[in-house]
Amino acid sequence: MTATLSDKARALLARPVIANLATVSSDGSPQLTPLWIDVDGDALLINTAAGRVKANNIKRDSRVAVSVVDPEDPYNVVVVKGTVTAVTEEGADAHIDVLAKKYLGVDEYPMRRPGEVRLKIRIRPDRIPMQG
Amino acid sequence: MTATLSDKARALLARPVIANLATVSSDGSPQLTPLWIDVDGDALLINTAAGRVKANNIKRDSRVAVSVVDPEDPYNVVVVKGTVTAVTEEGADAHIDVLAKKYLGVDEYPMRRPGEVRLKIRIRPDRIPMQG
Repeated sequence: MTATLSDKARALLARPVIANLATVSSDGSPQLTPLWIDVDGDALLINTAAGRVKANNIKRDSRVAVSVVDPEDPYNVVVVKGTVTAVTEEGADAHIDVLAKKYLGVDEYPMRRPGEVRLKIRIRPDRIPMQG
Repeated sequence: MTATLSDKARALLARPVIANLATVSSDGSPQLTPLWIDVDGDALLINTAAGRVKANNIKRDSRVAVSVVDPEDPYNVVVVKGTVTAVTEEGADAHIDVLAKKYLGVDEYPMRRPGEVRLKIRIRPDRIPMQG
């Protein structure tokens, strides 16, 4: 079941605010990563490089949580429990450029590493425990 | 083994910046909660009410992760993987007042609920994957 983001949550997610992504490691402990995020319809989109811990965790267990806190208003918060529904190389390079535009104001992601394979990760919100 | 916070990490944690705490739920999925935080020596201290999801999760599995992102500089980040070493009622009421002073500038935590039992939670950093 997909949970629906409120207009206020969408407004927060549209701003260049760093999100935190929680995944579960192979030993069952929680893993936390600050990252860029955006929204496509009701889905959350993040972007990482193949081989990173969070990418490996998601491959093993698609259950994740995402938190975004408004730096100007700590009561304006979005917390999502969700499921990764797609991890794709296709479109991932274009998508990291979109995120670079949002967060850095530049047309092209400036931190690409040689040989790096980008992954676009789509998260379906299952529950939204907090949204302002 | 205790990992040691850098001076820069300590400086960030001393500011009233909202942290995110990741725990693992009974079904194995990750749980994420924005909260107040402070530091005691090398330990991180948080405060919650008995019965909350994160308190129950910690009782079952003491492994947690904590992330703090500087709202003014997204590259100034502290991410800690740690273990809860103590959950105490003793001192928890005084401690939530300390946090209220830090985050709200008031002497007394203004959101107490009748009958609420506060818990002070001590986290030992085991690894610090990111610190500015």
